[in-house]
Amino acid sequence: MTEDSSTHEIVTAAIVIIGDEILSGRTKDKNIGFIADYLTALGIDLKEVRIVPDEEPEIVAAINAVRARYTYVFTSGGIGPTHDDITADSVAKAFGVGIDHDPRAVKILEDHYAPRGIELNEARLRMARIPFGADLIENAVSKAPGFRIGNVHVMAGVPSVLQSMMDAVAPTLKTGTKMLSETIPAGLPEGIIAAPLGAIQKAYPATIIGSYPYHDGTRYGTNLVVRARSAEMLTEAANAVRDMVAGLTPAT
Amino acid sequence: MTEDSSTHEIVTAAIVIIGDEILSGRTKDKNIGFIADYLTALGIDLKEVRIVPDEEPEIVAAINAVRARYTYVFTSGGIGPTHDDITADSVAKAFGVGIDHDPRAVKILEDHYAPRGIELNEARLRMARIPFGADLIENAVSKAPGFRIGNVHVMAGVPSVLQSMMDAVAPTLKTGTKMLSETIPAGLPEGIIAAPLGAIQKAYPATIIGSYPYHDGTRYGTNLVVRARSAEMLTEAANAVRDMVAGLTPAT
Repeated sequence: MTEDSSTHEIVTAAIVIIGDEILSGRTKDKNIGFIADYLTALGIDLKEVRIVPDEEPEIVAAINAVRARYTYVFTSGGIGPTHDDITADSVAKAFGVGIDHDPRAVKILEDHYAPRGIELNEARLRMARIPFGADLIENAVSKAPGFRIGNVHVMAGVPSVLQSMMDAVAPTLKTGTKMLSETIPAGLPEGIIAAPLGAIQKAYPATIIGSYPYHDGTRYGTNLVVRARSAEMLTEAANAVRDMVAGLTPAT
Repeated sequence: MTEDSSTHEIVTAAIVIIGDEILSGRTKDKNIGFIADYLTALGIDLKEVRIVPDEEPEIVAAINAVRARYTYVFTSGGIGPTHDDITADSVAKAFGVGIDHDPRAVKILEDHYAPRGIELNEARLRMARIPFGADLIENAVSKAPGFRIGNVHVMAGVPSVLQSMMDAVAPTLKTGTKMLSETIPAGLPEGIIAAPLGAIQKAYPATIIGSYPYHDGTRYGTNLVVRARSAEMLTEAANAVRDMVAGLTPAT
């Protein structure tokens, strides 16, 4: 909200994680943090994440809600060969397009399985179901591809595969002016810092200043993070925060 | 979708995580997995998670979207004393109610800070801002309370504090018939298992059968998870999956 948007290009994104196993707690998600770091490094602002179950109406609704709002959407999960892998069909439905075995994807699977003497059975062929009009996303790990349709990138849930797919996708993404950040650790409780920090935020509206409290087992502290797209703005605001923390620290 | 809902009570929930630091990747979320495990143990089905930035319109929209759909909503983050802590005000707005310093919350803070000689300054008093009509949620760790309004439970983002608040909230929750589960490890790729597994899912519609592939560094395998609210159904379907895996394993 306080971005200096007149001079910097803003590129936004959302993530949709698809999978009952995340919602049940059985699997602890590792993809949100990975994609978040990746996008931040590229200068793309992750604005929203949704985790939805393996149910077509939920997947369709989530994808349609976010693809209309953000520059890019990244999904994770549900593109394997089993009956609960319904992401590709759901994405086709969200876009109102057909879906069938894609000759390019079939060839990738044939080239992968044939030399190993593994049958390309009906279940494995399911992984070649790609919505009409989509481009494939290379999977350097286990070959079965992801795909991109419109601004939506559909990737696997297995972290190593998702990570290889992000590497394949990254060069195709438009990137914005990178959000720079500086962290100022403060061994002080938020209650002491809050008022002067709020004043600094007001004085530097082109920055976003956050306070992230922690408890180290014996006492509270907080990490103050200043973010800005302009290096000059960042330095000015971070210096103000640093001076404020230094001024308060001896007295405590 | 395949739940045996005629005889089992279904209680649902959503989580809303509030915080730029999660979206930037700076902080890796630990609360989703914790709450997911907690709810599963209580017999409450977590159906959706949203992560939104520290922006009032986004928080209001997310809370209003999920509170209308699910039995319970749990939020995490944004209830501290700093300028970027805007969850309480956003929740008041979502419910269309006023907000002010709550005498019960002020007393908790006074009782906490006064004996320590710590000033209850304006910033700390911000933590006593509670929407009209809300009940407080006890914070056994650092005292500043969360609150419940309607079906929405507003909790801290610091994991230790959130965990203590979940303990305070749990006894007040209506719980459903617990979803039971059994995991059958299969050292076989999904491509072999998919067809017979799909047939078992069809044969046991009152169960939910998921396949969660992994790669252990050298080969692919998958964990097959059968879930059901009826112990008998669970046993029958899990036995069918176990027999199927055993039948396929020697041949590989």
